Amino acid sequence: MSEYELYYWPTIQGRGEFVRLALEDARADYVDVARTEGGMPRMMALLQGTGDGLRPFAPPFLRHRSLVIAQTANILHWLGPRIGLAPDDADDHARIHQLQLTIADCVAEVHETHHPIASSLYYEDQRVEAARRSSHFVSERIPKFLGYFESVLEAGSREWFGASCTYADLSLFQLLSGLEYAFPRAMAKQRIPKLRALRDRVAQRPNVAAYLSSPRRLAFNENGIFRRYPELDAG
Amino acid sequence: MSEYELYYWPTIQGRGEFVRLALEDARADYVDVARTEGGMPRMMALLQGTGDGLRPFAPPFLRHRSLVIAQTANILHWLGPRIGLAPDDADDHARIHQLQLTIADCVAEVHETHHPIASSLYYEDQRVEAARRSSHFVSERIPKFLGYFESVLEAGSREWFGASCTYADLSLFQLLSGLEYAFPRAMAKQRIPKLRALRDRVAQRPNVAAYLSSPRRLAFNENGIFRRYPELDAG
Repeated sequence: MSEYELYYWPTIQGRGEFVRLALEDARADYVDVARTEGGMPRMMALLQGTGDGLRPFAPPFLRHRSLVIAQTANILHWLGPRIGLAPDDADDHARIHQLQLTIADCVAEVHETHHPIASSLYYEDQRVEAARRSSHFVSERIPKFLGYFESVLEAGSREWFGASCTYADLSLFQLLSGLEYAFPRAMAKQRIPKLRALRDRVAQRPNVAAYLSSPRRLAFNENGIFRRYPELDAG
Repeated sequence: MSEYELYYWPTIQGRGEFVRLALEDARADYVDVARTEGGMPRMMALLQGTGDGLRPFAPPFLRHRSLVIAQTANILHWLGPRIGLAPDDADDHARIHQLQLTIADCVAEVHETHHPIASSLYYEDQRVEAARRSSHFVSERIPKFLGYFESVLEAGSREWFGASCTYADLSLFQLLSGLEYAFPRAMAKQRIPKLRALRDRVAQRPNVAAYLSSPRRLAFNENGIFRRYPELDAG
Protein backbone atom coordinates (compact mmCIF):
# COMPACT_ATOMS: atom_id res chain seq x y z
CA MET A 1 0.00 0.00 0.00
CA SER A 2 1.32 3.43 -0.91
CA GLU A 3 2.02 5.96 1.78
CA TYR A 4 -0.35 8.46 0.19
CA GLU A 5 -3.50 7.89 -1.81
CA LEU A 6 -4.73 10.81 -3.87
CA TYR A 7 -8.38 10.77 -4.86
CA TYR A 8 -9.41 13.00 -7.74
CA TRP A 9 -11.30 12.89 -11.02
CA PRO A 10 -9.20 10.77 -13.35
CA THR A 11 -9.46 12.69 -16.64
CA ILE A 12 -8.76 16.29 -15.68
CA GLN A 13 -6.03 18.29 -14.02
CA GLY A 14 -8.51 20.35 -12.00
CA ARG A 15 -7.82 21.08 -8.38
CA GLY A 16 -6.17 17.71 -7.95
CA GLU A 17 -3.24 18.89 -10.03
CA PHE A 18 -2.03 21.18 -7.25
CA VAL A 19 -1.64 18.12 -5.06
CA ARG A 20 -0.20 15.96 -7.84
CA LEU A 21 2.52 18.53 -8.47
CA ALA A 22 3.54 18.53 -4.82
CA LEU A 23 3.60 14.74 -4.60
CA GLU A 24 5.57 14.51 -7.84
CA ASP A 25 8.08 17.19 -6.96
CA ALA A 26 8.78 15.44 -3.67
CA ARG A 27 8.85 12.00 -5.33
CA ALA A 28 6.42 10.90 -2.65
CA ASP A 29 5.18 7.33 -2.56
CA TYR A 30 1.63 7.89 -3.81
CA VAL A 31 -1.03 6.43 -6.04
CA ASP A 32 -3.60 8.42 -8.03
CA VAL A 33 -6.41 6.08 -7.03
CA ALA A 34 -9.19 6.97 -9.46
CA ARG A 35 -6.80 6.42 -12.37
CA THR A 36 -6.19 2.83 -11.32
CA GLU A 37 -8.47 -0.11 -12.06
CA GLY A 38 -11.41 -0.12 -9.67
CA GLY A 39 -10.36 3.22 -8.30
CA MET A 40 -13.44 5.25 -9.17
CA PRO A 41 -15.82 3.14 -7.07
CA ARG A 42 -13.41 3.45 -4.16
CA MET A 43 -13.39 7.23 -4.52
CA MET A 44 -17.16 7.42 -4.75
CA ALA A 45 -17.55 5.21 -1.67
CA LEU A 46 -15.38 7.55 0.40
CA LEU A 47 -17.32 10.54 -0.93
CA GLN A 48 -20.49 8.85 0.26
CA GLY A 49 -19.10 8.53 3.75
CA THR A 50 -18.01 4.92 4.05
CA GLY A 51 -14.58 5.82 5.39
CA ASP A 52 -13.49 6.51 8.93
CA GLY A 53 -13.58 10.05 10.11
CA LEU A 54 -14.71 13.18 8.37
CA ARG A 55 -16.38 12.73 4.99
CA PRO A 56 -14.99 14.94 2.20
CA PHE A 57 -17.36 17.38 0.54
CA ALA A 58 -15.67 16.91 -2.83
CA PRO A 59 -12.44 15.69 -4.42
CA PRO A 60 -9.54 16.09 -4.17
CA PHE A 61 -8.81 14.31 -0.96
CA LEU A 62 -5.77 12.56 0.36
CA ARG A 63 -5.59 9.41 2.43
CA HIS A 64 -2.68 8.59 4.69
CA ARG A 65 -3.30 5.42 6.68
CA SER A 66 -6.68 6.04 8.33
CA LEU A 67 -6.60 9.83 7.93
CA VAL A 68 -8.59 11.33 5.05
CA ILE A 69 -8.03 15.03 4.36
CA ALA A 70 -9.98 17.14 1.89
CA GLN A 71 -9.82 20.69 0.50
CA THR A 72 -6.85 21.36 -1.77
CA ALA A 73 -5.17 24.02 0.34
CA ASN A 74 -5.73 22.01 3.48
CA ILE A 75 -4.18 18.92 1.92
CA LEU A 76 -1.14 20.96 0.97
CA HIS A 77 -0.94 22.53 4.40
CA TRP A 78 -0.94 19.11 6.03
CA LEU A 79 1.28 17.44 3.45
CA GLY A 80 3.78 20.22 2.81
CA PRO A 81 5.90 19.90 5.95
CA ARG A 82 5.93 16.11 5.61
CA ILE A 83 7.43 16.15 2.11
CA GLY A 84 9.76 19.12 2.42
CA LEU A 85 7.60 21.67 0.60
CA ALA A 86 6.67 24.00 3.45
CA PRO A 87 8.56 25.98 6.07
CA ASP A 88 8.86 24.51 9.55
CA ASP A 89 8.08 27.78 11.28
CA ALA A 90 4.33 28.26 11.87
CA ASP A 91 4.33 31.96 11.00
CA ASP A 92 6.24 31.36 7.79
CA HIS A 93 3.86 28.57 6.93
CA ALA A 94 0.89 30.86 7.51
CA ARG A 95 2.34 33.18 4.86
CA ILE A 96 2.65 30.32 2.37
CA HIS A 97 -0.87 29.18 3.15
CA GLN A 98 -2.13 32.73 2.65
CA LEU A 99 -0.66 32.72 -0.84
CA GLN A 100 -2.09 29.28 -1.51
CA LEU A 101 -5.58 30.42 -0.54
CA THR A 102 -5.26 33.46 -2.76
CA ILE A 103 -4.26 31.16 -5.63
CA ALA A 104 -7.34 29.06 -4.77
CA ASP A 105 -9.55 32.14 -4.95
CA CYS A 106 -8.24 32.90 -8.42
CA VAL A 107 -8.79 29.29 -9.51
CA ALA A 108 -12.38 29.46 -8.28
CA GLU A 109 -12.93 32.59 -10.35
CA VAL A 110 -11.48 30.86 -13.39
CA HIS A 111 -14.11 28.17 -12.98
CA GLU A 112 -16.80 30.82 -12.79
CA THR A 113 -15.77 32.24 -16.16
CA HIS A 114 -17.26 29.24 -17.94
CA HIS A 115 -19.84 28.36 -15.27
CA PRO A 116 -21.21 31.69 -13.97
CA ILE A 117 -24.73 30.32 -13.43
CA ALA A 118 -24.43 26.74 -12.21
CA SER A 119 -21.97 23.87 -12.11
CA SER A 120 -24.86 21.59 -12.88
CA LEU A 121 -25.40 23.16 -16.30
CA TYR A 122 -23.28 22.71 -19.38
CA TYR A 123 -21.16 25.59 -20.61
CA GLU A 124 -23.37 25.74 -23.67
CA ASP A 125 -26.31 26.56 -21.42
CA GLN A 126 -24.60 29.62 -19.92
CA ARG A 127 -22.49 30.96 -22.78
CA VAL A 128 -24.01 34.41 -22.80
CA GLU A 129 -23.36 34.93 -19.10
CA ALA A 130 -19.93 33.33 -19.42
CA ALA A 131 -18.91 35.84 -22.07
CA ARG A 132 -20.00 38.73 -19.89
CA ARG A 133 -18.28 37.38 -16.79
CA SER A 134 -15.10 36.54 -18.67
CA SER A 135 -14.74 40.02 -20.09
CA HIS A 136 -14.56 41.32 -16.53
CA PHE A 137 -12.28 38.51 -15.42
CA VAL A 138 -9.84 39.20 -18.23
CA SER A 139 -9.82 42.97 -17.90
CA GLU A 140 -10.02 43.28 -14.10
CA ARG A 141 -9.29 40.09 -12.23
CA ILE A 142 -6.33 38.63 -14.12
CA PRO A 143 -4.39 41.90 -13.75
CA LYS A 144 -5.40 42.20 -10.10
CA PHE A 145 -4.43 38.67 -9.08
CA LEU A 146 -1.24 38.48 -11.14
CA GLY A 147 -0.29 42.03 -10.24
CA TYR A 148 -0.57 41.02 -6.62
CA PHE A 149 1.65 37.98 -7.01
CA GLU A 150 4.16 39.93 -9.09
CA SER A 151 4.29 42.65 -6.42
CA VAL A 152 4.94 40.05 -3.74
CA LEU A 153 7.94 38.88 -5.73
CA GLU A 154 9.12 42.42 -6.33
CA ALA A 155 8.85 43.33 -2.67
CA GLY A 156 10.91 40.34 -1.77
CA SER A 157 8.60 39.94 1.18
CA ARG A 158 8.25 36.35 0.22
CA GLU A 159 11.52 34.80 -0.80
CA TRP A 160 10.18 32.40 -3.36
CA PHE A 161 12.92 29.85 -3.69
CA GLY A 162 14.96 32.03 -1.40
CA ALA A 163 15.21 29.29 1.16
CA SER A 164 13.54 26.48 -0.67
CA CYS A 165 10.67 25.73 -3.01
CA THR A 166 7.24 25.39 -1.40
CA TYR A 167 3.92 24.00 -2.53
CA ALA A 168 2.78 27.56 -3.24
CA ASP A 169 5.53 27.95 -5.83
CA LEU A 170 4.35 24.78 -7.53
CA SER A 171 0.76 25.99 -7.40
CA LEU A 172 1.70 29.33 -8.89
CA PHE A 173 3.34 27.47 -11.76
CA GLN A 174 0.08 25.61 -12.28
CA LEU A 175 -2.03 28.76 -12.08
CA LEU A 176 0.11 30.51 -14.67
CA SER A 177 0.17 27.48 -16.94
CA GLY A 178 -3.59 27.17 -16.73
CA LEU A 179 -4.25 30.83 -17.39
CA GLU A 180 -1.92 30.72 -20.39
CA TYR A 181 -3.81 27.73 -21.73
CA ALA A 182 -7.24 29.26 -21.21
CA PHE A 183 -6.55 32.92 -21.96
CA PRO A 184 -3.54 33.09 -24.29
CA ARG A 185 -4.42 36.46 -25.78
CA ALA A 186 -5.09 38.09 -22.42
CA MET A 187 -2.00 36.55 -20.86
CA ALA A 188 0.26 37.79 -23.64
CA LYS A 189 -0.50 41.32 -22.44
CA GLN A 190 0.43 40.83 -18.79
CA ARG A 191 3.71 42.31 -17.64
CA ILE A 192 4.76 39.74 -15.07
CA PRO A 193 8.46 39.00 -15.60
CA LYS A 194 9.08 37.68 -12.12
CA LEU A 195 6.11 35.38 -12.24
CA ARG A 196 7.18 34.00 -15.59
CA ALA A 197 10.68 33.44 -14.27
CA LEU A 198 9.25 31.61 -11.28
CA ARG A 199 7.11 29.45 -13.55
CA ASP A 200 10.19 28.57 -15.59
CA ARG A 201 12.20 27.71 -12.50
CA VAL A 202 9.48 25.35 -11.35
CA ALA A 203 9.19 23.73 -14.77
CA GLN A 204 12.92 23.04 -14.73
CA ARG A 205 12.97 21.27 -11.43
CA PRO A 206 14.02 17.73 -12.32
CA ASN A 207 11.08 15.93 -10.76
CA VAL A 208 8.58 18.42 -12.14
CA ALA A 209 10.14 18.23 -15.62
CA ALA A 210 10.04 14.43 -15.49
CA TYR A 211 6.41 14.53 -14.43
CA LEU A 212 5.34 17.03 -17.09
CA SER A 213 6.78 14.86 -19.84
CA SER A 214 5.28 11.65 -18.43
CA PRO A 215 1.88 10.13 -19.18
CA ARG A 216 0.93 10.89 -15.60
CA ARG A 217 0.50 14.56 -16.55
CA LEU A 218 -2.93 14.91 -18.11
CA ALA A 219 -3.32 17.51 -20.82
CA PHE A 220 -5.45 20.57 -20.23
CA ASN A 221 -8.89 19.99 -21.70
CA GLU A 222 -12.37 21.47 -21.83
CA ASN A 223 -13.67 19.40 -18.92
CA GLY A 224 -11.27 20.88 -16.40
CA ILE A 225 -11.08 24.24 -14.68
CA PHE A 226 -8.83 25.92 -17.24
CA ARG A 227 -10.68 25.70 -20.57
CA ARG A 228 -9.71 27.15 -23.90
CA TYR A 229 -12.84 28.79 -25.22
CA PRO A 230 -11.54 31.49 -27.58
CA GLU A 231 -14.75 33.46 -27.22
CA LEU A 232 -13.94 33.98 -23.54
CA ASP A 233 -10.39 35.17 -24.17
CA ALA A 234 -11.19 38.78 -24.81
CA GLY A 235 -7.59 39.91 -24.46
CA MET B 1 -1.57 48.45 21.88
CA SER B 2 -3.95 45.52 21.65
CA GLU B 3 -2.59 42.04 21.22
CA TYR B 4 -4.54 41.55 18.00
CA GLU B 5 -5.58 44.07 15.39
CA LEU B 6 -8.34 43.02 13.02
CA TYR B 7 -8.57 44.88 9.74
CA TYR B 8 -11.84 44.66 7.85
CA TRP B 9 -14.44 46.86 6.16
CA PRO B 10 -16.11 48.77 8.97
CA THR B 11 -19.78 48.70 7.89
CA ILE B 12 -20.41 45.06 7.02
CA GLN B 13 -20.17 41.66 8.66
CA GLY B 14 -18.69 40.06 5.54
CA ARG B 15 -15.79 37.66 5.85
CA GLY B 16 -14.42 39.63 8.78
CA GLU B 17 -17.30 38.41 10.93
CA PHE B 18 -15.87 34.90 11.07
CA VAL B 19 -12.79 36.34 12.72
CA ARG B 20 -14.73 38.74 14.93
CA LEU B 21 -16.78 35.86 16.31
CA ALA B 22 -13.65 33.91 17.24
CA LEU B 23 -12.02 36.91 18.90
CA GLU B 24 -15.23 37.72 20.77
CA ASP B 25 -15.91 34.18 21.92
CA ALA B 26 -12.38 33.98 23.29
CA ARG B 27 -12.56 37.46 24.80
CA ALA B 28 -9.29 38.17 23.08
CA ASP B 29 -7.63 41.53 23.47
CA TYR B 30 -8.32 42.96 20.00
CA VAL B 31 -9.30 46.12 18.21
CA ASP B 32 -11.39 46.32 15.05
CA VAL B 33 -9.10 48.88 13.49
CA ALA B 34 -11.13 50.25 10.59
CA ARG B 35 -13.99 51.02 12.99
CA THR B 36 -11.78 53.30 15.05
CA GLU B 37 -10.92 56.88 14.25
CA GLY B 38 -8.21 57.02 11.60
CA GLY B 39 -8.45 53.28 11.13
CA MET B 40 -9.45 53.17 7.48
CA PRO B 41 -6.31 54.93 6.22
CA ARG B 42 -4.22 52.52 8.29
CA MET B 43 -5.99 49.57 6.69
CA MET B 44 -5.59 50.95 3.20
CA ALA B 45 -1.89 51.61 3.80
CA LEU B 46 -1.30 47.99 4.77
CA LEU B 47 -3.29 46.83 1.74
CA GLN B 48 -1.00 48.92 -0.40
CA GLY B 49 2.04 47.19 0.96
CA THR B 50 3.49 49.59 3.48
CA GLY B 51 3.76 47.00 6.23
CA ASP B 52 6.49 44.50 6.92
CA GLY B 53 6.22 41.12 5.35
CA LEU B 54 3.64 39.72 2.99
CA ARG B 55 1.05 42.14 1.66
CA PRO B 56 -2.58 40.99 1.99
CA PHE B 57 -4.58 40.60 -1.21
CA ALA B 58 -7.76 41.76 0.53
CA PRO B 59 -9.32 42.20 3.97
CA PRO B 60 -9.78 40.65 6.44
CA PHE B 61 -6.31 40.49 7.84
CA LEU B 62 -5.00 40.20 11.35
CA ARG B 63 -1.96 41.84 12.85
CA HIS B 64 -0.13 40.45 15.83
CA ARG B 65 3.01 42.43 16.62
CA SER B 66 4.88 42.52 13.30
CA LEU B 67 3.06 39.56 11.76
CA VAL B 68 0.24 40.30 9.32
CA ILE B 69 -1.91 37.34 8.26
CA ALA B 70 -4.61 37.39 5.60
CA GLN B 71 -7.25 35.01 4.24
CA THR B 72 -10.10 34.28 6.63
CA ALA B 73 -9.53 30.55 7.04
CA ASN B 74 -5.79 31.10 7.39
CA ILE B 75 -6.31 33.71 10.10
CA LEU B 76 -8.50 31.27 12.00
CA HIS B 77 -6.02 28.44 11.52
CA TRP B 78 -3.25 30.57 12.94
CA LEU B 79 -5.35 32.17 15.65
CA GLY B 80 -7.46 29.19 16.74
CA PRO B 81 -4.86 27.33 18.80
CA ARG B 82 -3.72 30.58 20.44
CA ILE B 83 -7.16 31.45 21.77
CA GLY B 84 -8.44 27.98 22.63
CA LEU B 85 -10.68 27.48 19.61
CA ALA B 86 -8.82 24.73 17.77
CA PRO B 87 -7.55 21.27 18.66
CA ASP B 88 -3.89 20.89 19.54
CA ASP B 89 -3.44 17.77 17.47
CA ALA B 90 -2.40 18.56 13.88
CA ASP B 91 -4.60 15.89 12.31
CA ASP B 92 -7.63 17.03 14.27
CA HIS B 93 -6.92 20.59 13.29
CA ALA B 94 -6.73 19.58 9.65
CA ARG B 95 -10.28 18.26 9.97
CA ILE B 96 -11.50 21.53 11.46
CA HIS B 97 -9.71 23.48 8.76
CA GLN B 98 -11.30 21.26 6.12
CA LEU B 99 -14.73 22.19 7.44
CA GLN B 100 -13.77 25.86 7.59
CA LEU B 101 -12.67 25.83 3.96
CA THR B 102 -15.92 24.16 2.96
CA ILE B 103 -17.82 26.87 4.81
CA ALA B 104 -15.69 29.41 2.93
CA ASP B 105 -16.63 27.80 -0.38
CA CYS B 106 -20.30 28.16 0.48
CA VAL B 107 -19.80 31.78 1.50
CA ALA B 108 -18.10 32.49 -1.81
CA GLU B 109 -21.08 31.01 -3.64
CA VAL B 110 -23.44 33.17 -1.60
CA HIS B 111 -21.56 36.21 -2.85
CA GLU B 112 -21.92 34.97 -6.41
CA THR B 113 -25.70 34.84 -6.08
CA HIS B 114 -25.88 38.62 -6.17
CA HIS B 115 -22.67 39.19 -8.13
CA PRO B 116 -22.52 36.44 -10.76
CA ILE B 117 -20.88 38.66 -13.37
CA ALA B 118 -18.46 41.00 -11.60
CA SER B 119 -17.69 42.36 -8.15
CA SER B 120 -17.01 45.68 -9.82
CA LEU B 121 -20.61 46.05 -10.98
CA TYR B 122 -23.61 46.90 -8.86
CA TYR B 123 -26.19 44.25 -8.16
CA GLU B 124 -28.63 46.26 -10.24
CA ASP B 125 -26.37 45.75 -13.25
CA GLN B 126 -26.50 41.96 -12.98
CA ARG B 127 -29.99 41.26 -11.66
CA VAL B 128 -31.05 39.01 -14.49
CA GLU B 129 -28.02 36.77 -14.11
CA ALA B 130 -28.32 36.91 -10.32
CA ALA B 131 -31.86 35.58 -10.46
CA ARG B 132 -30.79 32.70 -12.66
CA ARG B 133 -27.79 31.85 -10.53
CA SER B 134 -29.74 32.11 -7.30
CA SER B 135 -32.43 29.72 -8.44
CA HIS B 136 -29.73 27.07 -8.83
CA PHE B 137 -28.07 28.04 -5.56
CA VAL B 138 -31.31 27.73 -3.67
CA SER B 139 -32.46 24.48 -5.24
CA GLU B 140 -29.12 22.71 -5.54
CA ARG B 141 -26.34 24.26 -3.53
CA ILE B 142 -28.01 25.12 -0.23
CA PRO B 143 -29.27 21.53 0.15
CA LYS B 144 -25.90 20.13 -0.89
CA PHE B 145 -23.80 22.23 1.49
CA LEU B 146 -26.17 22.05 4.45
CA GLY B 147 -26.88 18.38 3.80
CA TYR B 148 -23.16 17.78 3.98
CA PHE B 149 -22.75 19.59 7.30
CA GLU B 150 -25.82 17.91 8.73
CA SER B 151 -24.47 14.51 7.71
CA VAL B 152 -21.17 15.27 9.39
CA LEU B 153 -23.06 15.93 12.60
CA GLU B 154 -25.18 12.81 12.17
CA ALA B 155 -22.17 10.63 11.54
CA GLY B 156 -20.57 11.91 14.68
CA SER B 157 -17.32 11.88 12.76
CA ARG B 158 -16.75 15.37 13.99
CA GLU B 159 -17.62 15.81 17.62
CA TRP B 160 -18.84 19.35 17.42
CA PHE B 161 -18.64 20.57 20.95
CA GLY B 162 -17.74 17.04 21.93
CA ALA B 163 -14.40 18.10 23.28
CA SER B 164 -14.72 21.84 22.96
CA CYS B 165 -16.06 24.51 20.66
CA THR B 166 -13.85 25.43 17.70
CA TYR B 167 -13.74 28.32 15.27
CA ALA B 168 -15.55 26.12 12.73
CA ASP B 169 -18.54 25.85 15.07
CA LEU B 170 -18.66 29.63 15.32
CA SER B 171 -18.35 29.95 11.56
CA LEU B 172 -21.14 27.48 10.99
CA PHE B 173 -23.33 29.59 13.25
CA GLN B 174 -22.50 32.59 11.09
CA LEU B 175 -23.14 30.73 7.85
CA LEU B 176 -26.54 29.57 9.04
CA SER B 177 -27.45 32.99 10.37
CA GLY B 178 -26.48 34.59 7.10
CA LEU B 179 -28.36 32.11 4.96
CA GLU B 180 -31.45 32.59 7.10
CA TYR B 181 -31.16 36.33 6.65
CA ALA B 182 -30.68 36.17 2.89
CA PHE B 183 -32.88 33.23 1.97
CA PRO B 184 -35.60 32.92 4.63
CA ARG B 185 -38.08 31.11 2.41
CA ALA B 186 -35.54 28.62 1.13
CA MET B 187 -34.10 28.03 4.56
CA ALA B 188 -37.50 27.33 6.08
CA LYS B 189 -37.62 24.22 3.90
CA GLN B 190 -34.29 22.71 4.97
CA ARG B 191 -34.40 19.76 7.32
CA ILE B 192 -31.29 20.38 9.35
CA PRO B 193 -32.15 19.79 13.02
CA LYS B 194 -28.60 19.16 14.13
CA LEU B 195 -27.30 22.25 12.41
CA ARG B 196 -30.00 24.39 13.97
CA ALA B 197 -29.22 22.95 17.38
CA LEU B 198 -25.55 23.73 16.87
CA ARG B 199 -26.39 27.28 15.84
CA ASP B 200 -28.46 27.69 19.00
CA ARG B 201 -25.70 26.31 21.20
CA VAL B 202 -23.25 28.80 19.73
CA ALA B 203 -25.69 31.69 20.15
CA GLN B 204 -26.06 30.81 23.82
CA ARG B 205 -22.39 30.85 24.60
CA PRO B 206 -22.03 33.73 27.04
CA ASN B 207 -19.40 35.68 25.16
CA VAL B 208 -21.16 35.18 21.84
CA ALA B 209 -24.51 36.21 23.32
CA ALA B 210 -22.93 39.32 24.83
CA TYR B 211 -21.35 40.18 21.51
CA LEU B 212 -24.52 39.65 19.49
CA SER B 213 -26.43 42.06 21.70
CA SER B 214 -23.67 44.66 21.70
CA PRO B 215 -23.14 47.53 19.25
CA ARG B 216 -20.01 45.74 18.09
CA ARG B 217 -22.21 43.31 16.15
CA LEU B 218 -23.15 45.00 12.90
CA ALA B 219 -26.54 44.17 11.43
CA PHE B 220 -26.79 42.22 8.20
CA ASN B 221 -27.27 44.62 5.32
CA GLU B 222 -27.31 44.80 1.55
CA ASN B 223 -23.65 45.76 1.26
CA GLY B 224 -22.37 42.55 2.80
CA ILE B 225 -22.13 39.00 1.56
CA PHE B 226 -25.50 37.86 2.88
CA ARG B 227 -28.09 40.15 1.30
CA ARG B 228 -31.85 40.00 1.55
CA TYR B 229 -33.11 40.40 -1.98
CA PRO B 230 -36.51 38.69 -1.96
CA GLU B 231 -36.37 38.12 -5.69
CA LEU B 232 -33.37 35.84 -5.19
CA ASP B 233 -35.04 33.77 -2.47
CA ALA B 234 -36.86 31.39 -4.74
CA GLY B 235 -37.61 28.94 -1.98
